[in-house]
Amino acid sequence: MGNAEIVAMSKEAASGNSAKIPETPERSETVRIEQFSDGVFAIAITLLVLGITVPKARDLGAGGGLGSALLKQWPHYLAFVTSFITILAKWVNHHRIFSFIQRTDHGFLYWNGLLLLFITFMPFPTALLAEYLRHPEAAVAGAVFAGTYVASAFAFKGLWNHASRNGRLLARDPDEREIRQITMQYRYGPLMYLAAFALSFVSVGLSVGVCLCMAVFFAVKGWPTLRTASLLLPTFTRKR
Amino acid sequence: MGNAEIVAMSKEAASGNSAKIPETPERSETVRIEQFSDGVFAIAITLLVLGITVPKARDLGAGGGLGSALLKQWPHYLAFVTSFITILAKWVNHHRIFSFIQRTDHGFLYWNGLLLLFITFMPFPTALLAEYLRHPEAAVAGAVFAGTYVASAFAFKGLWNHASRNGRLLARDPDEREIRQITMQYRYGPLMYLAAFALSFVSVGLSVGVCLCMAVFFAVKGWPTLRTASLLLPTFTRKR
Amino acid sequence: MGNAEIVAMSKEAASGNSAKIPETPERSETVRIEQFSDGVFAIAITLLVLGITVPKARDLGAGGGLGSALLKQWPHYLAFVTSFITILAKWVNHHRIFSFIQRTDHGFLYWNGLLLLFITFMPFPTALLAEYLRHPEAAVAGAVFAGTYVASAFAFKGLWNHASRNGRLLARDPDEREIRQITMQYRYGPLMYLAAFALSFVSVGLSVGVCLCMAVFFAVKGWPTLRTASLLLPTFTRKR
Amino acid sequence: MGNAEIVAMSKEAASGNSAKIPETPERSETVRIEQFSDGVFAIAITLLVLGITVPKARDLGAGGGLGSALLKQWPHYLAFVTSFITILAKWVNHHRIFSFIQRTDHGFLYWNGLLLLFITFMPFPTALLAEYLRHPEAAVAGAVFAGTYVASAFAFKGLWNHASRNGRLLARDPDEREIRQITMQYRYGPLMYLAAFALSFVSVGLSVGVCLCMAVFFAVKGWPTLRTASLLLPTFTRKR
Repeated sequence: MGNAEIVAMSKEAASGNSAKIPETPERSETVRIEQFSDGVFAIAITLLVLGITVPKARDLGAGGGLGSALLKQWPHYLAFVTSFITILAKWVNHHRIFSFIQRTDHGFLYWNGLLLLFITFMPFPTALLAEYLRHPEAAVAGAVFAGTYVASAFAFKGLWNHASRNGRLLARDPDEREIRQITMQYRYGPLMYLAAFALSFVSVGLSVGVCLCMAVFFAVKGWPTLRTASLLLPTFTRKR
Repeated sequence: MGNAEIVAMSKEAASGNSAKIPETPERSETVRIEQFSDGVFAIAITLLVLGITVPKARDLGAGGGLGSALLKQWPHYLAFVTSFITILAKWVNHHRIFSFIQRTDHGFLYWNGLLLLFITFMPFPTALLAEYLRHPEAAVAGAVFAGTYVASAFAFKGLWNHASRNGRLLARDPDEREIRQITMQYRYGPLMYLAAFALSFVSVGLSVGVCLCMAVFFAVKGWPTLRTASLLLPTFTRKR
Repeated sequence: MGNAEIVAMSKEAASGNSAKIPETPERSETVRIEQFSDGVFAIAITLLVLGITVPKARDLGAGGGLGSALLKQWPHYLAFVTSFITILAKWVNHHRIFSFIQRTDHGFLYWNGLLLLFITFMPFPTALLAEYLRHPEAAVAGAVFAGTYVASAFAFKGLWNHASRNGRLLARDPDEREIRQITMQYRYGPLMYLAAFALSFVSVGLSVGVCLCMAVFFAVKGWPTLRTASLLLPTFTRKR
Repeated sequence: MGNAEIVAMSKEAASGNSAKIPETPERSETVRIEQFSDGVFAIAITLLVLGITVPKARDLGAGGGLGSALLKQWPHYLAFVTSFITILAKWVNHHRIFSFIQRTDHGFLYWNGLLLLFITFMPFPTALLAEYLRHPEAAVAGAVFAGTYVASAFAFKGLWNHASRNGRLLARDPDEREIRQITMQYRYGPLMYLAAFALSFVSVGLSVGVCLCMAVFFAVKGWPTLRTASLLLPTFTRKR
């Protein structure tokens, strides 16, 4: 065994063994954006509960007690759960995108900012929908709710398209199949949310149901499978 | 001393000395979920204080001053402290579970999401209980409060069962005794919270007291002991 | 190849390859301040949405429906978007400054604390402006809004001046051109915000528009270019 | 140069150069507690702004405009700034303590939890003080405000005493002078806050002033000096 090999193996010992993507300054920029975004997701998902208010004791009235007052608030619980699952699913998908990205540029920063804008906005349409779900004007609230989903779906699509066009910001050896799968997902996602938006003028309940189903669906799809994980190891794999 | 040994020791120098679990991509996924969850725990625990409102100057009335108005709010302080300790204990136990886990899958993601749903929800039953503790309908508020505790205890049990069944997501050489102890804890925990839930129909105060005691108990039990810590070193220990 | 060279290369393998700034204790202090600041930025940006309230069903009145009530709230959306972009731009610039800094001292801590004070304050002028934009007293709200921007611009300038005077807290081999560019930016930024402040007494809309444009401009300028990135590699570059 | 030396230097290259405290599992526990606490500090400091409410347009009345309504809110701004500086100072001191600590135990966890309880509680006395500063009952609000400061000062003292008694949880070679200085600080801090508490019955303004001065003072004292930094390098220093 020659000295050169010792050095090579020692190099691998230092960086390869831990199977991390080498932390270039650019990589560290994406980590930074990702951590900031994670903070925003975590806060937005926790603020949703502020939309559920405690019924005032003096408003309980003669007819019913606290139990029925709480039950009458069911649109708030439904909206809370729907938005919770949605933001969680968007967090999962955000991570999925970032697991492929190794560079950033101005455009990427804008698209990510636009996405976060819609995420932080989400507690408002959630509270709006909860307030008006049983009101004659429910369709307006439902349209604002589904509209926010449409907007964030388009922001996601823009983020991904910007990053993946010609593999601009991606790792060098991406799994083509995964990339195509994500591209497909972002092609049809916005269309389906547009359908939910249109549905809100017919039946708000149906529209919210579609949004809920899609959130669950995207949460499943978005979680890195083993195939994805192997992508995180390009250097390691090549070296072997 | 041969060259092979040099390489081996140099390898150990690079990874073993720092006594970290090697960061495989899968490990990094669990770290990511844990950090996001930590954010949610930290925010939920800090939002609790928003449930304590400042008495309006114009509501002080003729009878009493600010001091008595503040004292009359004691259910808010009690609820605040109880929920604070509970969320802190759940955070401690969440970490304890994650110290054993090295892989994730879809099911794990769901169970963790369900758990976080109940954690972020907790400020609502806390404020509800505080508002109604001295009201004739206190039992309803107490049942919602204890019910949320039951639900989160079951989510914790589900998370642990999913992860530990056949050691599916655990580190390879877990300390069997620790694992059994946690499994026992999650077997009896939900039952005891169910008892607190039943108690809430008899005496809300007693029910809250049981919840508080259990939070303190689980916070103690959940903190990694030295025995746990040794588990984090399987590679290191084996290599020696 | 001699043994000395092996050691040298092995050293590089261990630290140089990952292209990180060596983590001295001082460096770890700046990381700590940066992460705490990031948390504050992320929370402040997410709290903005709490300034947008759901119109009460009983306030909808006879004249208009929910749709027109939501449209009438447009100043809230405008203020939300403006403050969102501003805080995001300030986060980007905060990172830019920190990418040059490797030491901290008491003065730096104070300036950073002052900056965070204005950042956490920002949800208040945002809500104020939104409430009064169509009110006869809009100029007062606009002045408070633009005034907060002026104050935070001066805090930024102070932070940068303190850190860069004689290169006090900077990395040892900074790119002089970048440094000069940032210094220029912080020389003219506060002046332009002062102009926006003066404008608020003439036209609040114009003043807000200037603030919005400057936020977008600074977000672009602030993002590390490749030239900046090369600065993060002084050790690495020197060693080659 | 012998092979043994190569190995030794390569070892140093891998771990010593980056000058980090070796990350034992116990160390990683303290990092975890510290990061969670940091999150709580960051959120509590950002929630303070929610205590400042926008004056309602319909409450402006005939007598004065928005400007005077905003000026009349000065107690809110004062309380906001005082609490902001206090929480920032407590964060700085929290870090200072953690820079000496390398082990945790149950008691440490309790003391830290108690401290965080008072930190998350702080937005309430802040809002209370702001609401009642110009009210005849200001003394009550001032006592609650200063009382919370006393309580958190005692929690800090308890945390430090628990950690430092016989050097229980400290790094092995602490700088005795630094340790003594911190111990002194925590001996007199609670007493001074007790004095501020007593003062609140004489003059609330004076009491708040003392609290503010002490926050500034502790922020200065708490920031690690170079002497502290050298403590973080015990292994590194010994090896040289």
